[in-house]
Amino acid sequence: MTSELITGIGELTTQDDDHARLTDAAVVLEAGRIAWIGPASRAPAADRRTDVAGRAVLPGWVDTHTHVVFAGDRSAEFEARMAGQRYAAGGIHATVRATRAATDAELTATASTLRREAQAQGTTFLEAKTGYGLDLETETRSARVAAEVADVVTFLGAHVVPPDADRRDYLDLVTGPMLTAVRPYVDFVDAFCERGAFDVDESREVLLAGRAAGLGLRLHGNQLGFGGAVALAVELGCASVDHCNYLTPADVEALASSSTVATLLPACDLSTREPFAPARALLDAGASIALATNCNPGTSYTTSMPFCVATAVLQMGLTVAEAVWAATRGAARAVGREHGPDAVGSLRVGGRADLQVLAAPSVAHLAYRPGVALTAAVWRQGIRVSG
Amino acid sequence: MTSELITGIGELTTQDDDHARLTDAAVVLEAGRIAWIGPASRAPAADRRTDVAGRAVLPGWVDTHTHVVFAGDRSAEFEARMAGQRYAAGGIHATVRATRAATDAELTATASTLRREAQAQGTTFLEAKTGYGLDLETETRSARVAAEVADVVTFLGAHVVPPDADRRDYLDLVTGPMLTAVRPYVDFVDAFCERGAFDVDESREVLLAGRAAGLGLRLHGNQLGFGGAVALAVELGCASVDHCNYLTPADVEALASSSTVATLLPACDLSTREPFAPARALLDAGASIALATNCNPGTSYTTSMPFCVATAVLQMGLTVAEAVWAATRGAARAVGREHGPDAVGSLRVGGRADLQVLAAPSVAHLAYRPGVALTAAVWRQGIRVSG
Ligand SMILES: [Zn+2]
Ligand SMILES: [Zn+2]
Repeated sequence: MTSELITGIGELTTQDDDHARLTDAAVVLEAGRIAWIGPASRAPAADRRTDVAGRAVLPGWVDTHTHVVFAGDRSAEFEARMAGQRYAAGGIHATVRATRAATDAELTATASTLRREAQAQGTTFLEAKTGYGLDLETETRSARVAAEVADVVTFLGAHVVPPDADRRDYLDLVTGPMLTAVRPYVDFVDAFCERGAFDVDESREVLLAGRAAGLGLRLHGNQLGFGGAVALAVELGCASVDHCNYLTPADVEALASSSTVATLLPACDLSTREPFAPARALLDAGASIALATNCNPGTSYTTSMPFCVATAVLQMGLTVAEAVWAATRGAARAVGREHGPDAVGSLRVGGRADLQVLAAPSVAHLAYRPGVALTAAVWRQGIRVSG
Repeated sequence: MTSELITGIGELTTQDDDHARLTDAAVVLEAGRIAWIGPASRAPAADRRTDVAGRAVLPGWVDTHTHVVFAGDRSAEFEARMAGQRYAAGGIHATVRATRAATDAELTATASTLRREAQAQGTTFLEAKTGYGLDLETETRSARVAAEVADVVTFLGAHVVPPDADRRDYLDLVTGPMLTAVRPYVDFVDAFCERGAFDVDESREVLLAGRAAGLGLRLHGNQLGFGGAVALAVELGCASVDHCNYLTPADVEALASSSTVATLLPACDLSTREPFAPARALLDAGASIALATNCNPGTSYTTSMPFCVATAVLQMGLTVAEAVWAATRGAARAVGREHGPDAVGSLRVGGRADLQVLAAPSVAHLAYRPGVALTAAVWRQGIRVSG
């Protein structure tokens, strides 16, 4: 196994416990892990040497909320929504129909293309959900595809009740045979706890069934209005509750006193014209936040973590450091991967060598230069995968 | 001269007078111009053939507002502003000091890098302004550099009064010897008509001097508050008035009844946390609008027209078609290049072959997929310059 010395780092964001932003730093990668971090003048020898010429280096993005296992096109629906028109053609159900009709190979191809697209913009760890199958066979196929393409997989059979299904029967399916069928492929269970999808009691039932099957818990909630999802997530100790656009002061307090991360999805908020989640209030209260793309064909068809980071700074009142933290270490916390040998979202000796070089001297440029392609190079598990 | 047939176009946005969005179209380029447009099935033979496999083709972006001739770094000022801190270090005057100290070669290198960066995202026509010299020598050098790098150059000696200069003396310089010195290199005259810069009467004096010297007129105005800039621009028949964040109903009406284009700068609005310009109200009243980046190191350090288009759709209430029009043909109107042999921003037989292919089947994806790199290939004057 060859080692690689990355030197000439103008600014190194490690996201380790010191929150260091080092200058004149160097990093050595070996066997997929970080072997050494320190001042360039004291760097050990390595088999290969890459000089990044004063550029900024930081952990790869950790995107913990995507729905990249899908088929079909919804660009016309998007364009009609932006033109203020109502669009009859079925929303999520259109995606479900197309996903059921797609082959495994087609689903894998689309998800892989999106994963590569994300990687080219610095994403080195990606979550993917099921939830466009809504029947036992297609949810299972979706979970298998997701496990092939993503780093961590979430079972979202409880996305919506499929048309023509009986509500109670569908919940029994999700918490019974469907859960059993997807179980080999998935790490988390999730539910869409929102008016029109599942209520708090139904969501609790789904999450508890998942917990009994040994899965981690996460929850979609408080996206379209106030409601009990955040309280439920805190009650059950979910790793994350995602969206969080409508939070009462009590919700903010509950999150601040819990270990549940609030995962915010700014690109989705823009694409649906919902108000941004109250990121500043959450941080000020002491809650943990993560940023994710929510990549999906209906409400947020982007893989760009840099776009989410820029939006969080420019429009949600986060500092650059807070937004970058939320897209790396905060995100790792939201999938239970902040610590331990499989930790991601930070650069520590012994940890995974997932990192990116920006075509800029500091992370500030991520918001200072919105829309500009700033990902110069990406390493995942020590392998240079982009740039 | 070889000819090139571009075929397999899934959606062709011509921005000609029919506002056509054609399917199954083909285009022939020859000698830097469009030689033929029509259905793929009737395309003539050509020396070379490029199949774009169902992708969308549209005119290259026309970016009519940039300040890319500068030196120095202001990322720390940006980061402090985003963190809610006041930053003592001089704003525009820091850029003026650095620009005066830079060599011509340094200024050209920075401007050229930004132009190439813009081109990689589809910009085929770029305006650049002077305005960071504020003395005769540096304004003249800046104008010369701008003329080398950009398609059209604007003299902005009236950016601010330089520190320690007498206001009246400086106006005499700008409207006298400085104007004479830059005249060989510039096409337009401009002034920053805003509290803290130049008032309406001073701005009128600058523009009239420019007109007497044979220059076209444009104006910065109504960015930081209500004021008389828009009325002045309409009074003088300026090609464009830029920013337009604060408009009274009378301003909107005046623009709608004039030939002056309102050039909107959404990336600047985000980076300064000003409210967006009232794009929807302007269009609804019948005014013409353009979108531009305002690329500059202080208030909008982006070259990305796709980011501006996405923001205009997602946040300013424009339809996709309106935003794309504003970034192509509307922008051409804002620099007097909508018609004639040097027209840009539209695809017409006999016109300049400035066009781009998206990595997507329709222009809707520009807003549907924010932050994703969608520029697949760019031709400028018939030469493939990117992708
Ligand atoms: Zn989701
Ligand atoms: Zn400007």
